[in-house]
Amino acid sequence: MINERLDLLREALPYIQRFKNKIFVVKLSGKVTEDQDQLASLAEEMTLCQQVGIHIAVIHGGGKQLSSIAERLGVTQKIVNGRRVTDTETLEIAKMVFAGQINIDIVSALRRCGAETVGLSGVDGSIIHARRREIQEVINHETGQVETIDFGHVGDIVDINVRLLRLLLDNGYIPVVSSLGADDDGNVYNINADTIASEIAAHLQAEKLILLTDVDGILRDRDDAESRISRLTVEEAERLVSEKIVSSGMLPKIASIARLVRRGVRSAHIINGQKRNALLYEVFTDEGAGTMITAS
Amino acid sequence: MINERLDLLREALPYIQRFKNKIFVVKLSGKVTEDQDQLASLAEEMTLCQQVGIHIAVIHGGGKQLSSIAERLGVTQKIVNGRRVTDTETLEIAKMVFAGQINIDIVSALRRCGAETVGLSGVDGSIIHARRREIQEVINHETGQVETIDFGHVGDIVDINVRLLRLLLDNGYIPVVSSLGADDDGNVYNINADTIASEIAAHLQAEKLILLTDVDGILRDRDDAESRISRLTVEEAERLVSEKIVSSGMLPKIASIARLVRRGVRSAHIINGQKRNALLYEVFTDEGAGTMITAS
Amino acid sequence: MINERLDLLREALPYIQRFKNKIFVVKLSGKVTEDQDQLASLAEEMTLCQQVGIHIAVIHGGGKQLSSIAERLGVTQKIVNGRRVTDTETLEIAKMVFAGQINIDIVSALRRCGAETVGLSGVDGSIIHARRREIQEVINHETGQVETIDFGHVGDIVDINVRLLRLLLDNGYIPVVSSLGADDDGNVYNINADTIASEIAAHLQAEKLILLTDVDGILRDRDDAESRISRLTVEEAERLVSEKIVSSGMLPKIASIARLVRRGVRSAHIINGQKRNALLYEVFTDEGAGTMITAS
Amino acid sequence: MINERLDLLREALPYIQRFKNKIFVVKLSGKVTEDQDQLASLAEEMTLCQQVGIHIAVIHGGGKQLSSIAERLGVTQKIVNGRRVTDTETLEIAKMVFAGQINIDIVSALRRCGAETVGLSGVDGSIIHARRREIQEVINHETGQVETIDFGHVGDIVDINVRLLRLLLDNGYIPVVSSLGADDDGNVYNINADTIASEIAAHLQAEKLILLTDVDGILRDRDDAESRISRLTVEEAERLVSEKIVSSGMLPKIASIARLVRRGVRSAHIINGQKRNALLYEVFTDEGAGTMITAS
Amino acid sequence: MINERLDLLREALPYIQRFKNKIFVVKLSGKVTEDQDQLASLAEEMTLCQQVGIHIAVIHGGGKQLSSIAERLGVTQKIVNGRRVTDTETLEIAKMVFAGQINIDIVSALRRCGAETVGLSGVDGSIIHARRREIQEVINHETGQVETIDFGHVGDIVDINVRLLRLLLDNGYIPVVSSLGADDDGNVYNINADTIASEIAAHLQAEKLILLTDVDGILRDRDDAESRISRLTVEEAERLVSEKIVSSGMLPKIASIARLVRRGVRSAHIINGQKRNALLYEVFTDEGAGTMITAS
Amino acid sequence: MINERLDLLREALPYIQRFKNKIFVVKLSGKVTEDQDQLASLAEEMTLCQQVGIHIAVIHGGGKQLSSIAERLGVTQKIVNGRRVTDTETLEIAKMVFAGQINIDIVSALRRCGAETVGLSGVDGSIIHARRREIQEVINHETGQVETIDFGHVGDIVDINVRLLRLLLDNGYIPVVSSLGADDDGNVYNINADTIASEIAAHLQAEKLILLTDVDGILRDRDDAESRISRLTVEEAERLVSEKIVSSGMLPKIASIARLVRRGVRSAHIINGQKRNALLYEVFTDEGAGTMITAS
Repeated sequence: MINERLDLLREALPYIQRFKNKIFVVKLSGKVTEDQDQLASLAEEMTLCQQVGIHIAVIHGGGKQLSSIAERLGVTQKIVNGRRVTDTETLEIAKMVFAGQINIDIVSALRRCGAETVGLSGVDGSIIHARRREIQEVINHETGQVETIDFGHVGDIVDINVRLLRLLLDNGYIPVVSSLGADDDGNVYNINADTIASEIAAHLQAEKLILLTDVDGILRDRDDAESRISRLTVEEAERLVSEKIVSSGMLPKIASIARLVRRGVRSAHIINGQKRNALLYEVFTDEGAGTMITAS
Repeated sequence: MINERLDLLREALPYIQRFKNKIFVVKLSGKVTEDQDQLASLAEEMTLCQQVGIHIAVIHGGGKQLSSIAERLGVTQKIVNGRRVTDTETLEIAKMVFAGQINIDIVSALRRCGAETVGLSGVDGSIIHARRREIQEVINHETGQVETIDFGHVGDIVDINVRLLRLLLDNGYIPVVSSLGADDDGNVYNINADTIASEIAAHLQAEKLILLTDVDGILRDRDDAESRISRLTVEEAERLVSEKIVSSGMLPKIASIARLVRRGVRSAHIINGQKRNALLYEVFTDEGAGTMITAS
Repeated sequence: MINERLDLLREALPYIQRFKNKIFVVKLSGKVTEDQDQLASLAEEMTLCQQVGIHIAVIHGGGKQLSSIAERLGVTQKIVNGRRVTDTETLEIAKMVFAGQINIDIVSALRRCGAETVGLSGVDGSIIHARRREIQEVINHETGQVETIDFGHVGDIVDINVRLLRLLLDNGYIPVVSSLGADDDGNVYNINADTIASEIAAHLQAEKLILLTDVDGILRDRDDAESRISRLTVEEAERLVSEKIVSSGMLPKIASIARLVRRGVRSAHIINGQKRNALLYEVFTDEGAGTMITAS
Repeated sequence: MINERLDLLREALPYIQRFKNKIFVVKLSGKVTEDQDQLASLAEEMTLCQQVGIHIAVIHGGGKQLSSIAERLGVTQKIVNGRRVTDTETLEIAKMVFAGQINIDIVSALRRCGAETVGLSGVDGSIIHARRREIQEVINHETGQVETIDFGHVGDIVDINVRLLRLLLDNGYIPVVSSLGADDDGNVYNINADTIASEIAAHLQAEKLILLTDVDGILRDRDDAESRISRLTVEEAERLVSEKIVSSGMLPKIASIARLVRRGVRSAHIINGQKRNALLYEVFTDEGAGTMITAS
Repeated sequence: MINERLDLLREALPYIQRFKNKIFVVKLSGKVTEDQDQLASLAEEMTLCQQVGIHIAVIHGGGKQLSSIAERLGVTQKIVNGRRVTDTETLEIAKMVFAGQINIDIVSALRRCGAETVGLSGVDGSIIHARRREIQEVINHETGQVETIDFGHVGDIVDINVRLLRLLLDNGYIPVVSSLGADDDGNVYNINADTIASEIAAHLQAEKLILLTDVDGILRDRDDAESRISRLTVEEAERLVSEKIVSSGMLPKIASIARLVRRGVRSAHIINGQKRNALLYEVFTDEGAGTMITAS
Repeated sequence: MINERLDLLREALPYIQRFKNKIFVVKLSGKVTEDQDQLASLAEEMTLCQQVGIHIAVIHGGGKQLSSIAERLGVTQKIVNGRRVTDTETLEIAKMVFAGQINIDIVSALRRCGAETVGLSGVDGSIIHARRREIQEVINHETGQVETIDFGHVGDIVDINVRLLRLLLDNGYIPVVSSLGADDDGNVYNINADTIASEIAAHLQAEKLILLTDVDGILRDRDDAESRISRLTVEEAERLVSEKIVSSGMLPKIASIARLVRRGVRSAHIINGQKRNALLYEVFTDEGAGTMITAS
């Protein structure tokens, strides 16, 4: 019995060798981080990956938790076409929820597994140099009206500085970065976590970008959970987009992944972080758990 | 005119040389961090110190801001003899306020001055290894009654690990640490920021521990702001305590400073962070601004 | 199904963390190296250990293979009380068999698993500084007669120089050392491989010395394979010796292990290298496969 | 009062940040080094610059002092069109005056300020690889006659080797280089200090070359000290030359600066080293003290 | 008398300076290694070269010794056109003779001189990545018949990895490499030592490749030992080949040298290792002992 | 013939190995440096030693040359009991002669041999921290009178800082140090070169201190050049002093050597630098050229 278990360990060897000293950028969605048991399980998977020699960097946002605290504080949230308008009060809550609550939850879950971890936001070490998003004319998908929207303290990424991340990765730490950035005047901005994950993956020349979401990957038929596409190229993904096979919620993810893979990251993965062992599937099996997108 | 100004720069030379490559641990009280203008001014002073070669590590708590957010969220705070009982909800708020709101305020204020900064909590890099404070019999100063108090998620420091802090200081970053810690099971605790500052100063073998508070230092006559004692030894400080000259609020600070100075930190300073240039006074003048306590 | 396999991987995490960056000195007996399938299996186990962060150094002799080649070349072997008299022709064969045949078999088995390996003998890098064993009066166990024996080119260890071994371990190589040494005049000697393994383990301050033999460990009743003692202290081992419970063949092994454990190596293990996963048992389970001897 | 002084320190911060880790090559003319009080004052300015993070390299000649010692020793000096003919006796005096007297005066003035300094000549570490200047046909400006001049032990720079200078700068030393060089046969030459300063600035990729002379900079009207040009481009400087606005003594300085700025040094400065704080003006104010020449 | 000897030492200075920190790859033929006195003498020459700052890497085969042991073991050797067919038994003997016997003879001879040495084969550290030579149609020079030859375990070089060699050279060791290699499946191959020496010299960007053989170099008239050509270019060597002046045994050596010199190795030398001081001649005299081939 | 010369090279091997990476401090007396041919010859010997791996540091004074320049400048020298009174004018001449003239002569002689050299004085890098010698009551040996002597700018060594010397030695430079030092106020002092050499040898933990003088060593009978003692212990040397066998001029040398050898320098040598190959004799022969003093 034990012998069979040990034989299983041997099967892990080629995977360990393949990914030795490679960088995986893992993006955790709010749905994944809010369930403490799921987070504990994922922390163990990430620690295991790190212990066998993979460098892990974690990025997270936390829109769901932000909305919940905002409601408790009586701060109304305005969301246009799925994008949050971040007024001054909301920014304060974002700082508290992203960099305080969720970040420490992730860090302490990793610490319980014995991993050396450092919680950061994009403001630290000038990781994310951002600028305020300009006021835009937007067609409100709900109303169909053109609106002039000031997204407030929402920022767009101007540049990424990975010096601090490299320093921490080289010294055995798992950096955990919440989705805030700043400009050179120290103004803090709320920034899209998917975009941060992509940009950091590109600047670190990561092997993989792994998006841990609450969906099983890209479905050929969005009503059929069994129609998951396990592997496709950037070109195929873009064809799915143009043929409107993928849902609109997937559009920005696929666009950002396409750019990323063209910038040298070997592959991007959309997997369901709510399923046990989702991350280990990607590292220790050939089939994988979600959808893997590669350059060719 | 300009020549006179440049002559003043020359006077800074011996101070710069004296403190080159030394470590200053600076503890910011909640009163200091809540005023954004004061914080901006202090950030400039800290950046200047760092630029002339002093290594700066910042520690902060934020009890005042914690109480304010707790009130907004309708979470009643219980404080016994000046010490906060940290129930589960309060801990969540402490994480948000300390590690989210205040920490990012300090980091972004430093970034505006051009300093490379990294916001941390004591959970990161296992900086603070803590354990839950045991249930205690306490005489409630207000009621005079003995009470059995469970301080909840309040932690005491078991050990300090400065590897991460050294790594960051050696690479030109100002680490900013909020007053949280954890045990090996990843349970997070609210920890007294003064104690953290003392312990980190001792483990880093700092040159100075600087407590930036809202008082001008130790007063010989607590009703006479002019009676500030500018310099005293640990023994003299302890005599003031036994002679009840210093107020009870100063007692734990002085006790912790006494231990600290005996462990090799050259001096500890209690200064009024609300006064402009308070920190620069300590570095660039002989007299200093508050009260300096030395071993002998 | 796959999920169960991945759960097993998680169970390996605490073992990986415990032995990270520790050194294991593994001694392979001739019986283990002569079966190419067993060697291939062991090579995979050693590579897996190395990939998860354990530093592995391998020591081997090869008396069985030496006798076989000597016979083919018509060189008669004289063995007194289990110790080989090494005349000039036998030394030449020992060089060929130990450093040529067996060493390259081990190195190429490891290479097939993707491990970076360097085959050495104790002559390289002055690892083993030896001197010729003096002519001795010996009671021949077979004849019961006192004989004056010149063991020829048999050497005793004067000193160990681990600089080369550290250089290779620090750079990710598995050093494989055959049981030869030399004196400063370049005279080569045949040296007992168990002794080399013990000495190298002590000088490298190894975590474990693992003797891969063809027995299952120390038996309480040598006729009962089920009577294996899985764990005992040095004192207990020495009591077994004085009570003549262990066989005389085990005597030198136990004496050498006792010295070793007293010099700082955490534990020594006698396990049966002919059994699949014998090494993994020691690393990834609490029970272990053979007999483990510790200081206390 | 003190508060105002400390506010002035804050004003220095942006300048300190701008020039952090940049290299300034400072050339001291003989007139600047011969007054011990001026030298002491300048040494303090250079030490202050170094303490706030600027790397300082000093170059000096010393024609005035050379003439004075030559006269005392009865060695007649022949100077043609402002250039000294260096016969064998004069070379011996140059070695003594440049590398002995003046160099040690500068080094000891810096040491008094607490700076770590190393006095060198261009012969050390093969900094200056020179060759003997060829015999030239020259129109003597005084006589108007064509003369065939052998400048003797005067050398022209063939190559610069900055390895030693980098080693010293990287280790916190201020190198002070006197204006001698040598060829590969070890023949020593007297070399123009301005040229050395320019070449070293170019090879070190310095931020600034600062020529500390006894004039206030380039004057638009050489009879009007108030007509100083505070900033001009290389092209403007060359136009001034072609329009004969600058005096002939400035010609070689401007030509050499033009080449330099085109080779990547950010700016060159001609300032009056006899005025207190002349160097600090350049570092800590925007206006500057003399004339600054930039590429564009 | 002693003074004359010391004067001779001075004459070595320019040669020491010229070759400081350069790499020499020295290939020892079987004829050179089989005579222990010659080997001892050569070891002293190599140690002297290393001690004055030259990095030495040694390559060797040992066909002569292989044939002798094969004969003793009754394993018939088949050699076609001077190339050995390596069946499984012969490969086992090659491992023993090359990596066991000869390699240790060289290592122990160097150790006697006080040199730090590491014996390797091309299997170690993946130095030689080889593949099995394909079955070939060959015209047997003896019989004149076309034969289909399977050379068995003979390998051709696919790639060279010099990481291990650089690590050892940088740390003061003389690596001694026997002529074996392997593929990624761990299959070991017998590989031509001249080819290995050339490839390693090219990959290490060596200054010199020195072939220590039993001939005096290239002779203009192969029957006249006095007709040695001391220096020629690659083009001249190729002309000698096309004009059939050099013997066919020299053909592959010259072809391989030509390729090598075109890949950046400064020169290749064919010298008679059986003559005392042959190596020192190349280093410490201008004339040299054998034939030196350069690019131009 | 050439073969004999190359055999001589082999004889150098054990000496090269013995002194590899050891430090020799070589003190050159004024008599040795004033003859340019002798200096050139010595420079070649020192370069050869350095090229075979010995670290060389050179110390020199230059009293003879100082007196000669002083005379030419009309500055009277007062010498009491062999020790020079250094008034302000004499100090200026000492700076010029030691650090200018002689230092550059040595540096350029070494450069001609291809050695990387850096000329220094004890003022550089705070190598020599000195203080002014106190006014002393002295019995004038000439007059027999007690005199109160102010030696002026003569300094005694307070401390030695070898950081700069180690930096240069570790980077392959030969430092050449002239006999000046300074106090923390930057006052320069004339310091005894023998004392400097001893102190630097002790602080560098040198293998040998070599005093290159104009005598053949210690003579048993000072009138008999053949009575040289080639080797003696510190105790024997002190007995020779107490028995007044050695001349009074040797007294301070022997006292300083005795202290030195007791502080860990392996041996001190007094040899005649005017004899060709004097230094090589010490390195490459067992007998040596002068007198060698060892601890026991």
